[in-house]
Amino acid sequence: MSNSKDIDALIDMMAKLPGLGPRSARRAVLHMIKKRSLLFIPLAETMHTVAATARECLNCGNIGTSDICDICNSEKRATGELCVVEDVADLWAMERSGVFKGRYHVLGGTLSALDSIGPDELRIPQLMNRVAAENITEVILALNATIDGQTTAHYIADQLPNVEVTSLAQGVPIGGELDYLDDGTITAALKARKSF
Amino acid sequence: MSNSKDIDALIDMMAKLPGLGPRSARRAVLHMIKKRSLLFIPLAETMHTVAATARECLNCGNIGTSDICDICNSEKRATGELCVVEDVADLWAMERSGVFKGRYHVLGGTLSALDSIGPDELRIPQLMNRVAAENITEVILALNATIDGQTTAHYIADQLPNVEVTSLAQGVPIGGELDYLDDGTITAALKARKSF
Ligand SMILES: [Zn+2]
Ligand SMILES: [Zn+2]
Repeated sequence: MSNSKDIDALIDMMAKLPGLGPRSARRAVLHMIKKRSLLFIPLAETMHTVAATARECLNCGNIGTSDICDICNSEKRATGELCVVEDVADLWAMERSGVFKGRYHVLGGTLSALDSIGPDELRIPQLMNRVAAENITEVILALNATIDGQTTAHYIADQLPNVEVTSLAQGVPIGGELDYLDDGTITAALKARKSF
Repeated sequence: MSNSKDIDALIDMMAKLPGLGPRSARRAVLHMIKKRSLLFIPLAETMHTVAATARECLNCGNIGTSDICDICNSEKRATGELCVVEDVADLWAMERSGVFKGRYHVLGGTLSALDSIGPDELRIPQLMNRVAAENITEVILALNATIDGQTTAHYIADQLPNVEVTSLAQGVPIGGELDYLDDGTITAALKARKSF
């Protein structure tokens, strides 16, 4: 296509990224080549570093560059509050709002009978262990307002009779996904959280 | 944001690519980290290779991995026909249609009084040299059907009184850009080209 095997391979791989297709991948690669020293070389180097070091936190499932992520490592975040999210993208959305000071637990998805995803396919057993081991007094369920998200929230609440379980309340639209919300909405929803 | 300096830097750089923004860059980076061995590591390696080797062809302006691109190096492409395009993306679009067998000349833009882009800011002097040096019998102007594109086409045609100058005809919509067309439209436009 471009008459260079490497450039074609790069376009093909970029086209597999979510939100990109063949045409936008070609545009992106041409753009990078034109901005070689300002963008392409630093991007290639950072990509190399992250590809070599990025991993899931063994405790919470967040993505970082060490076995235990910075949030789990920080004593300041041991507030007794644990925020449960479906995905790392949701954790990042919570962090951007800056309003939550505790730690997180990333489930890695939601329960789904249709897709045969039960508690053991998610990080639910680890969540139960953490609630006991980390002196958790409140579990905040920040799951998406979808049917599967709410099924998962009910399941977790049922498993935790001895700890306060709350959920994000005001501001999360029906059928909406957390990662699409603006920071202000997340802040409002967290502040107005109600008992589950 | 993600609590990792390298991951944040990667997201920031990805967000600068055309068609991506902060949100799609975050999604893309999470996707790559999840597909580490199948996508992320090969992508990082290919990016490193292309960043180190990609350059503009000294003859035609095409992008490849050597000083003279494969098309300029191929004796088979010395048909006497030279196709003039604005941008490398347009050259790639022509190549995907597979119908043109000659060589290319990438102008690097269009003439624009508004942006003070004259012939010397584009590869127009080099075009004149090539027409003489490479025994060109036909110059096909495959410029976008925009005002600046057509102004540039007229200017080039005026500079080449002793060679046949044609332009893509049927199928290019008014105001349309070449890189957006499907291969069949490009094929039809090239086959029905008319004297300029
Ligand atoms: Zn962690
Ligand atoms: Zn060339």
